[in-house]
Amino acid sequence: MSRFAGKTLENLMPYTPGEQPRDMQYIKLNTNESPFPPSGKAQAAAASVAARLQLYPDPTCRALHEAYAASVGVPADCVLATNGSDEILNFAFMAFCDENTPAAFADITYGFYEVFAQLNRVPYRKIPLNEDFTLPIEAFCKNDATLFIANPNAPTGIALPASEIERILQANPDRVVLVDEAYVDFGGESCIPLVAQYDNLLVTQTFSKSRSMAGARLGFGVGNPALIADLNIIKYSTNPYNINSMTMAAGLGVLADESYTRANCETVIENREYLAAELARMGFIVLPSRTNFVFAKHPRMDGEEIYRYLRERGILVRHFTSPRIADYNRITIGARADMETLVNTLQKILEETT
Amino acid sequence: MSRFAGKTLENLMPYTPGEQPRDMQYIKLNTNESPFPPSGKAQAAAASVAARLQLYPDPTCRALHEAYAASVGVPADCVLATNGSDEILNFAFMAFCDENTPAAFADITYGFYEVFAQLNRVPYRKIPLNEDFTLPIEAFCKNDATLFIANPNAPTGIALPASEIERILQANPDRVVLVDEAYVDFGGESCIPLVAQYDNLLVTQTFSKSRSMAGARLGFGVGNPALIADLNIIKYSTNPYNINSMTMAAGLGVLADESYTRANCETVIENREYLAAELARMGFIVLPSRTNFVFAKHPRMDGEEIYRYLRERGILVRHFTSPRIADYNRITIGARADMETLVNTLQKILEETT
Repeated sequence: MSRFAGKTLENLMPYTPGEQPRDMQYIKLNTNESPFPPSGKAQAAAASVAARLQLYPDPTCRALHEAYAASVGVPADCVLATNGSDEILNFAFMAFCDENTPAAFADITYGFYEVFAQLNRVPYRKIPLNEDFTLPIEAFCKNDATLFIANPNAPTGIALPASEIERILQANPDRVVLVDEAYVDFGGESCIPLVAQYDNLLVTQTFSKSRSMAGARLGFGVGNPALIADLNIIKYSTNPYNINSMTMAAGLGVLADESYTRANCETVIENREYLAAELARMGFIVLPSRTNFVFAKHPRMDGEEIYRYLRERGILVRHFTSPRIADYNRITIGARADMETLVNTLQKILEETT
Repeated sequence: MSRFAGKTLENLMPYTPGEQPRDMQYIKLNTNESPFPPSGKAQAAAASVAARLQLYPDPTCRALHEAYAASVGVPADCVLATNGSDEILNFAFMAFCDENTPAAFADITYGFYEVFAQLNRVPYRKIPLNEDFTLPIEAFCKNDATLFIANPNAPTGIALPASEIERILQANPDRVVLVDEAYVDFGGESCIPLVAQYDNLLVTQTFSKSRSMAGARLGFGVGNPALIADLNIIKYSTNPYNINSMTMAAGLGVLADESYTRANCETVIENREYLAAELARMGFIVLPSRTNFVFAKHPRMDGEEIYRYLRERGILVRHFTSPRIADYNRITIGARADMETLVNTLQKILEETT
């Protein structure tokens, strides 16, 4: 830190994005990107606005909010678009936590929740997942805090039914419960239908995974209009033009091509089931995934050893060092050919280390 | 505010962007946009990456940082790109102010500084500009605070020479002095050459004005590597993928087309001098502008009256209600034809109200 650094920088541990190495071409299965290009409609729409970039984007994102709201079945004033879903998560920490309103989240979940709590200098508690990595519903029900729940969870891939989230919503009527649905399109159950009933529910989604738009940065929050109004105050006090014109256009394009998104999600699910079955056949323990990745360990191999072995052979997966999950690797579901290469490579590791 | 709102939302007054009306086609002279499209190289580069949006952008922005650093003559580790320059301004409030390190800025300046201070719950002081709207150098020299100085200033358009900023830097060696150069390319003097000498200097620039990229959202901070490292901690704790791939590509494209940028700036300066002379001829008091706008008032007409008269006739300018400047309007420099239309319309107001 420089000698000018203020208190926010004290003890702040930034998030580490998945590595983007440049030393060689990898099969990249480490950042949960889609193996498919974005919809042609998204590409064309983005390109068509590039000629008008001298004008500011619409800060109200009216057309995009309306189209997204229609696609998820809520009124437009229940929706806020952000520069990736990390931004809406941070906005929620800013709006609904403070020194007297702590945050709480699972001990094994998206690593950015802890960073946002530190950044906003908000007290926080980590609630240990059950032994089998499922969410301890009762512990979340009894926690007087703004709750952050990734559903399906990352990096485990495990999903809760909406009815279980509903129990948590009912048990915490005076605290916001944020349900982060970054991976919901790969077989999870969305809580968006509950928004009309629960004024304490905020659902977040992203176009980075199922919509093949990680490079465009587009996330959404869905909640009742009073929560969205709070988040808009944060937005207009932070970066009113947070969504650039090209991303806005691409978002409208992809929303006009839902069949493409659905077909891609189905292919990812098929490839996931293929990979999970092959991993199980090789003796891996694979957590039940409803996402575009699997989380797996092998009883007789170290997680980091597998990670390194794959990396040396041109396959990147994501390994986390925190003790409860250090045996595992998170493997993004890619194209079928990449899954087959991965399976063959893992087969070799197991043969070599027998 | 909702019943869930935390302390950050208390008393927060969000920024109000310039209006983007939809009721009719206006000559838009209210948000300081460029009248020229972005460089063809920027357009082509942005369009070419739209097909690969399924991949995350490079969070380190390496190529963009290197190209921008080369264009302003500093090493690449002196540079940080952000989602518009509002983001780097907010990062600076987060990094270099806290409850014990107040912020200070002019009473008449970019309105977002006050919003960022409130958002980050940082104490702040407003230093009154001199009667002629020039910056009171001595008052800034004597102020023990993180200083935010727009140079040229907005909405006055008045510029300070770098040597005056240097006096402030020397008088405040233990506080960061942020110099916001959003408008510097229209005749101001940049402080970037001082970065090598002053470890407390942070310069911010934007591609929204001179580079015709308001719709792409791209800003930069330039400072010594220790300050940039602090800001990177904030970035990686806020939104590591803050710059989308299309904007990154467009930024590289426009940096490869400097002659286009220079020619556009020259045209804007010519049109500004034309407009300023015509306004003066009609009896307006026009502050000396080094920006892509002028700030002007007429001795016998109310500022809001002029704003309303123009709006009804399809010309949008920006009027601020704060008492010291309520007589003025801020008028963006557009294409010559639009400047002529404006002059003719103002001529009519004056004739009608004689």
